[in-house]
Amino acid sequence: MKNTVKIIAFDADDTLWVNEPLFTRTRVQYEEILSHYFEITDSLEQELYETERNNLKLFGYGIKGFMLSMIESALQLTNYKISGMDIESIIKLGKEMLRHPVEILPGVEETLKDLKENYKLMVITKGDLFDQENKIARSGLAEYFDVVEILSEKTIEAYADVLKRNNVHCDEFLMVGNSLRSDVLPVCELGALAVHVPFHDTWMHENIVDESLLDNHYIKIDEIKELVPLLV
Amino acid sequence: MKNTVKIIAFDADDTLWVNEPLFTRTRVQYEEILSHYFEITDSLEQELYETERNNLKLFGYGIKGFMLSMIESALQLTNYKISGMDIESIIKLGKEMLRHPVEILPGVEETLKDLKENYKLMVITKGDLFDQENKIARSGLAEYFDVVEILSEKTIEAYADVLKRNNVHCDEFLMVGNSLRSDVLPVCELGALAVHVPFHDTWMHENIVDESLLDNHYIKIDEIKELVPLLV
Repeated sequence: MKNTVKIIAFDADDTLWVNEPLFTRTRVQYEEILSHYFEITDSLEQELYETERNNLKLFGYGIKGFMLSMIESALQLTNYKISGMDIESIIKLGKEMLRHPVEILPGVEETLKDLKENYKLMVITKGDLFDQENKIARSGLAEYFDVVEILSEKTIEAYADVLKRNNVHCDEFLMVGNSLRSDVLPVCELGALAVHVPFHDTWMHENIVDESLLDNHYIKIDEIKELVPLLV
Repeated sequence: MKNTVKIIAFDADDTLWVNEPLFTRTRVQYEEILSHYFEITDSLEQELYETERNNLKLFGYGIKGFMLSMIESALQLTNYKISGMDIESIIKLGKEMLRHPVEILPGVEETLKDLKENYKLMVITKGDLFDQENKIARSGLAEYFDVVEILSEKTIEAYADVLKRNNVHCDEFLMVGNSLRSDVLPVCELGALAVHVPFHDTWMHENIVDESLLDNHYIKIDEIKELVPLLV
């Protein structure tokens, strides 16, 4: 890889630490609650996603919006018959997610330690400001990062703003993340470098990619520990 | 006022635009819903605030957390008997808040226009990233501001970080806002200037002030239009 890179930015959820499996597990517990009212089929996950998708423009990303969408979807799917106790159980599921310890992915800390010697490191994550700040603080990784940028959406324009705000030129910038849609393609489109580290569990929303961006060139690695050898 | 000021930062909610009255109105509508179940007394508002306060550490500030606290409080206050339709009505109240047009306060736009000629202007607001970005975009005021900082909490440390991040010296900085707790006292404590513009409607949480900071000197004005004459 040509190496004019000076700044390496990392996505956080499912790149630095486990995130989507928490949602996946919560969806299973949510189905258990709703199974008191009707037989669960595969369409339930799709119904919940439709509610989330419809609410994205009002709520943005994050666990609080997910909690509200779970409640809203449960009301509709049970024809408003869901009990108060079960609504509270749904709120508890969300609160458990918010309290859940941050589980760092394998190889992350070693990689950051190595890179920190020669590069300026950033976190660029999207979602709920309060949740993401909390997770960064609780992760114990904050000391590795010179800059933390929490965005409401990871668009081409949002990345351009981040680079401008931090006086970073495209040639100097490398983004590392698990989402083609959010971490890789918009960054490539700006003319900067991106490395894709897929994660085994991805929210269906992140799989919806702007196909006009798919011609962009990026590097794919299987594990984050392959990043350091790539930069030598 | 001694004028070494180069950067003027404004709080947003209830400084640039109407915010708390939206919450106040929603609380009244919420009480109407709950009046189907029991007789409403003054303690209801206090009960809801207790739930909000208990949830602050998990949810942070913002309308989505408020929606969840309204639902949680309603479940407890009705002994879990609240109907699914009424839970949906509470969600609708929150969604109406999120969709509500941004109502700019009198004198704001003229003041920003005047100040823009001689000062760098910032917004420093706390709350939900997505909501606040949306409000700034919908306000039509975005063009006046060089920098927008959305914080999860307005502490002394958070202001110090903002100044550092933007290479602003305390002597050059003036903060304008309606909350003594969030906009005025922490800024004074840093040694920067602050102007208090009280708003008629204040959430009880913002009235809880760190008394050890009350000795700080700040200027109080009745309306934002008094700011320009103050700076001449």
